Amino acid sequence: MKTLHEYADMVEARLDALLPEMADGAYEMGGMPWLLANSMHYSLMAGGKRLRPAMLLAAVEMLGGDAGEALDFACAVEMIHTYSLIHDDLPGMDDDTLRRGRPTNHVVFGVGPAILAGDGLLNFAFETMLRAASAHPQRAAANLAAICEIAHGSGVTGMIAGQAMDLHCERADGGDAGALDYIQRGKTACMFAYPLRAAARLADADAAQLTALSDYGMAFGLLFQATDDLLDVTGSADAMGKTLGKDAASGKLTCVSALGIDGTRARIEREHRAAVDALSIFGARAAFFVQLVDDMVERTH
Amino acid sequence: MKTLHEYADMVEARLDALLPEMADGAYEMGGMPWLLANSMHYSLMAGGKRLRPAMLLAAVEMLGGDAGEALDFACAVEMIHTYSLIHDDLPGMDDDTLRRGRPTNHVVFGVGPAILAGDGLLNFAFETMLRAASAHPQRAAANLAAICEIAHGSGVTGMIAGQAMDLHCERADGGDAGALDYIQRGKTACMFAYPLRAAARLADADAAQLTALSDYGMAFGLLFQATDDLLDVTGSADAMGKTLGKDAASGKLTCVSALGIDGTRARIEREHRAAVDALSIFGARAAFFVQLVDDMVERTH
Repeated sequence: MKTLHEYADMVEARLDALLPEMADGAYEMGGMPWLLANSMHYSLMAGGKRLRPAMLLAAVEMLGGDAGEALDFACAVEMIHTYSLIHDDLPGMDDDTLRRGRPTNHVVFGVGPAILAGDGLLNFAFETMLRAASAHPQRAAANLAAICEIAHGSGVTGMIAGQAMDLHCERADGGDAGALDYIQRGKTACMFAYPLRAAARLADADAAQLTALSDYGMAFGLLFQATDDLLDVTGSADAMGKTLGKDAASGKLTCVSALGIDGTRARIEREHRAAVDALSIFGARAAFFVQLVDDMVERTH
Repeated sequence: MKTLHEYADMVEARLDALLPEMADGAYEMGGMPWLLANSMHYSLMAGGKRLRPAMLLAAVEMLGGDAGEALDFACAVEMIHTYSLIHDDLPGMDDDTLRRGRPTNHVVFGVGPAILAGDGLLNFAFETMLRAASAHPQRAAANLAAICEIAHGSGVTGMIAGQAMDLHCERADGGDAGALDYIQRGKTACMFAYPLRAAARLADADAAQLTALSDYGMAFGLLFQATDDLLDVTGSADAMGKTLGKDAASGKLTCVSALGIDGTRARIEREHRAAVDALSIFGARAAFFVQLVDDMVERTH
């Protein structure tokens, strides 16, 4: 297995090949127009950590599968994650003007093109996975199952469900612990759990391995969100690389607003343990994934 | 083969089953939240003519395939069409407040939920097709090929490409005949041509039949758009069921603005002939599809 950084580099290179920049004004019949290609490229190549796709590739290799064959599926996960950020940042949603230290997509390209860049990345994610699946007809069933997992995670009972509930609670100025759980599972954890489930499908994992990765991904996502919520209140802007306290100011339902700081720390401890426990069937092979959650908890100390 | 109305009824009933309305405030872990389900439902069940999915089903039956097995693919096409309308109507895009005589999605549910309703319908379209494909593993290759066709038609070199170019030309206050062609092929014709290509895949059509349906769909789409552009200028608001003259007022690039009224009439005649010619290999079996283009041209007389 490789390091997180090495998996991220694989993803970075492949994304750049799948979606090259175009000259201003360029288009040809049957191809993309520059405005769409470049607005998609701007957000996709904005220096994300590629955490979700890297974890998918690592899981495939941990299970003895081929990371190269899984690469387009991993890239699709990153496209979906990126589209969700572009749409989240829009006026009418979070209305953010900065993301990863750069102006958000709609600030640079306008609201209309940003909506289309998001739509385009979601559709292109499926195009990319479907093309990869079609290239290996002898693997059709496993590839189809992997695409299903990712579609489910990003879908109307997964990521989009969480976002819709988040929007509702923000407008209603609150929500209970049940709503918090629903939002964070949907919005954040599904896009870790389901790509890992896809990895299991791609690597022909057995049912126990599939469940273990799924449980780890869900716990990882909840831990990720709880850590983020905690550091939004207790962290320093420098270390986080973004404006802090924004969630509280906008009345967003977070772990801290629903559970308090101590409750959030307890949740972090609980999800950390759940994540590590889920990996037990893999033994020492899961060191990569244990390290990820250990590092995350370390940041909150 | 059935009538257009009968195919539309099949689609209507299946869409309603795939996406039922929910009680206000309802949600459960792993399911959709009411806000998302109901905003998707509002636009999906808004009384569209179901032309694209009906044509897909008719093509499958013309080729000897099973319309019942193709139904979820047809419904997915309608979901994609509907999402594109929701996003098109948003502020930052066309900023429309009325669609099919009812307030547009963002007017009823707000901009944020409307963005998510569109995202949700696009993702749900893929979820629906993938679930249908997974249910018939022995048809995996044909089903996968059909999903690929639809993804291509709705994608970044298809529908979304046309929309992005349209947005650019509107802002640049114009565009040439090449841009017009690019926009109308992408934005309108691809969502007729590619669903018909999907029908060919689902019915195991041969290469000549695939090309014939594809050519017909492209000509149909260009004819559809040219007719719409012409009637926006020469038609009556009553007959069209919408505000007329809006395209000209917003500086949109249309057949009439680029080619003039006579040029548009010539285009209508040309695409009508191309559509009918493409169907020749099907002989009398293609009566359904010939009738569709004949009726369309009839409206411009």
